[in-house]
Amino acid sequence: MPESKSYPVEALKDFTIRYFKGMGVPEIDSRIAADVLISADLRGINSHGVIRLHSYYGDRLQKGLIDPASTIRTLSENPSTLALDGGNGLGQVVAYRAMSRCIEKADETGLAVTTVRNSNHFGIAGYYAMMALPEDMIGISLTNSQPLIAPTYGMKRVLGTNPIAVAVPAGEEKPYVLDMATSIVPLGRISLYEKTGQSIPEGWAINKNGELTQNPSDMINGGALLPLGGPALMRGYKGYGLSLLVDLLSGVLAGAAFGEDVGRPSNERNADVGHFFASIKIENFRPIEEFKSDMDAYIRSLKASPKLPGQDRIFIHGEKEEELTEAHLRDGIPLLNEVVEALVMAGEIAGVPFDIKPVQ
Amino acid sequence: MPESKSYPVEALKDFTIRYFKGMGVPEIDSRIAADVLISADLRGINSHGVIRLHSYYGDRLQKGLIDPASTIRTLSENPSTLALDGGNGLGQVVAYRAMSRCIEKADETGLAVTTVRNSNHFGIAGYYAMMALPEDMIGISLTNSQPLIAPTYGMKRVLGTNPIAVAVPAGEEKPYVLDMATSIVPLGRISLYEKTGQSIPEGWAINKNGELTQNPSDMINGGALLPLGGPALMRGYKGYGLSLLVDLLSGVLAGAAFGEDVGRPSNERNADVGHFFASIKIENFRPIEEFKSDMDAYIRSLKASPKLPGQDRIFIHGEKEEELTEAHLRDGIPLLNEVVEALVMAGEIAGVPFDIKPVQ
Repeated sequence: MPESKSYPVEALKDFTIRYFKGMGVPEIDSRIAADVLISADLRGINSHGVIRLHSYYGDRLQKGLIDPASTIRTLSENPSTLALDGGNGLGQVVAYRAMSRCIEKADETGLAVTTVRNSNHFGIAGYYAMMALPEDMIGISLTNSQPLIAPTYGMKRVLGTNPIAVAVPAGEEKPYVLDMATSIVPLGRISLYEKTGQSIPEGWAINKNGELTQNPSDMINGGALLPLGGPALMRGYKGYGLSLLVDLLSGVLAGAAFGEDVGRPSNERNADVGHFFASIKIENFRPIEEFKSDMDAYIRSLKASPKLPGQDRIFIHGEKEEELTEAHLRDGIPLLNEVVEALVMAGEIAGVPFDIKPVQ
Repeated sequence: MPESKSYPVEALKDFTIRYFKGMGVPEIDSRIAADVLISADLRGINSHGVIRLHSYYGDRLQKGLIDPASTIRTLSENPSTLALDGGNGLGQVVAYRAMSRCIEKADETGLAVTTVRNSNHFGIAGYYAMMALPEDMIGISLTNSQPLIAPTYGMKRVLGTNPIAVAVPAGEEKPYVLDMATSIVPLGRISLYEKTGQSIPEGWAINKNGELTQNPSDMINGGALLPLGGPALMRGYKGYGLSLLVDLLSGVLAGAAFGEDVGRPSNERNADVGHFFASIKIENFRPIEEFKSDMDAYIRSLKASPKLPGQDRIFIHGEKEEELTEAHLRDGIPLLNEVVEALVMAGEIAGVPFDIKPVQ
């Protein structure tokens, strides 16, 4: 396995903020974008963290393919609905603002949906869903993304790994936070296997001829990811249906690109990514204390239910990520040496030296 | 394979209406319940059709476990939100009324959610999602159900097969209608394999010791279904997360039973099933003609994309069901002889003779 060292969270976040500012992003927006990226690393979703700082965001800012100081435009607004144009801004900034307005509207009416077109890759979907938690709301965050999944009976990448994120508050227990790609695994997972020279489990991906492959490079070079569920016998068409659904809501409903037209981070054109956010105010349906008490009871009963032989724990979604966040805040965020080297180079481009010492 | 004959749709529906009336259900409600059941058979989801007429519904009406003439009570209402108590009525009737009100509200505000507690098994979730289609809305229908799925690393049935149904209108193409259990397969599928003496594919279910089994009886007698995705390596915890999500929205948010407390059709107590419905008015986000034109383009591009060797068609969700509906309207609905025998007996209980001749 390649070597890694851990870096202190605040210093890494500060570097990320200064990096975005160096690339022309306003201070307040730089703080938002950095918080989303560092949150991914904190939660252990390192495929979506600072590893992508330059390749997904900085490189496109530099080339003028993302507008560092975009204006978000309202296309149509009603008490419970809002359609926005993200002005080709940084996905994190556009999504943060869109979800903030969605939550404000839901606070008035009990329920709101905000769609966004003309945006970019926004990092982890769960970040925006979780923004609803302190408001005692259920948050939903969807986005389309570059084509990577083959539909059932198909062999070409035509659908994104289009994630579904939903956050539901609990009382004393940790909140439920689902944040899942609608493929079996996201592209970042395949890349990690490739980087570390490992075979992927059979069933995750096909090669360019549509055959199952255990070689991660076969997927990356013209192959495709399989939808959650895998083959038709195991009901992979449900995962295909969920991936498509996310695109119908965040691409087609928003009036953004959809399907094969969603831009890849490496495309030399606007990505026109679409998002869909929803907020549900729990108090409109039942007293919040009753709701939270039922959430706690449900979580406890699931965790207490009988385990498979050899297993000693049943997890609730988001629980591992909360524990990793605590550990990383204490011990620092582990980064592969090659990721640090890329950050050093990114810093040079932005005029911001990466001078952070690893945790001893 | 057991023998089956086909029966004319209208006669079967008429019998179903008369059956419900015979069990004390008002005429208008009998028509609603019958339409939902027959729609399942029309769409080829015969596990959820008239096969369950007595066992899931009539038997419980007879025992006083479902109120044939329940009153639906509003618990709280706001312009975009509505919380209902179904009064332990027939699930189909309660759900139909709840979704109707959800659509009316969304017509005013662009968006609505209706939750329901104190209801019963409502048949196919897709029926209610599809009610939004003629209104140019996106319809969402969720329900919790009796515990059957083991969570990842667990071995006991603690979650229902809690379906997700979403209907999205298209223009010239057929609408997108996802209607999926969050297990790999629903219980009805396992029962069908048991009835016809077939082994189930490995990966669908575990026995009471938590071991994978290919014997359908092992699942039925104390085993459990596996969530979509299957084992953790194939990301079955995503299917587990979706099943839980459906219960958080339709059980906990609605204030209904949840998890292991959701009643089985065979339980001698109120089931307290919960539902969640949502309607989204497309016109609030973008002009409906643009939306439909993009839907058509998307569906056509998916269907035209390259096929796996040996495959000649890529399906959109709901497409097969639309084709089966056309075929069944023309040729009649195929029923196993033992299902017909059960309908004859059910008819005797309700004082309604089953005197329908099969199609020649």
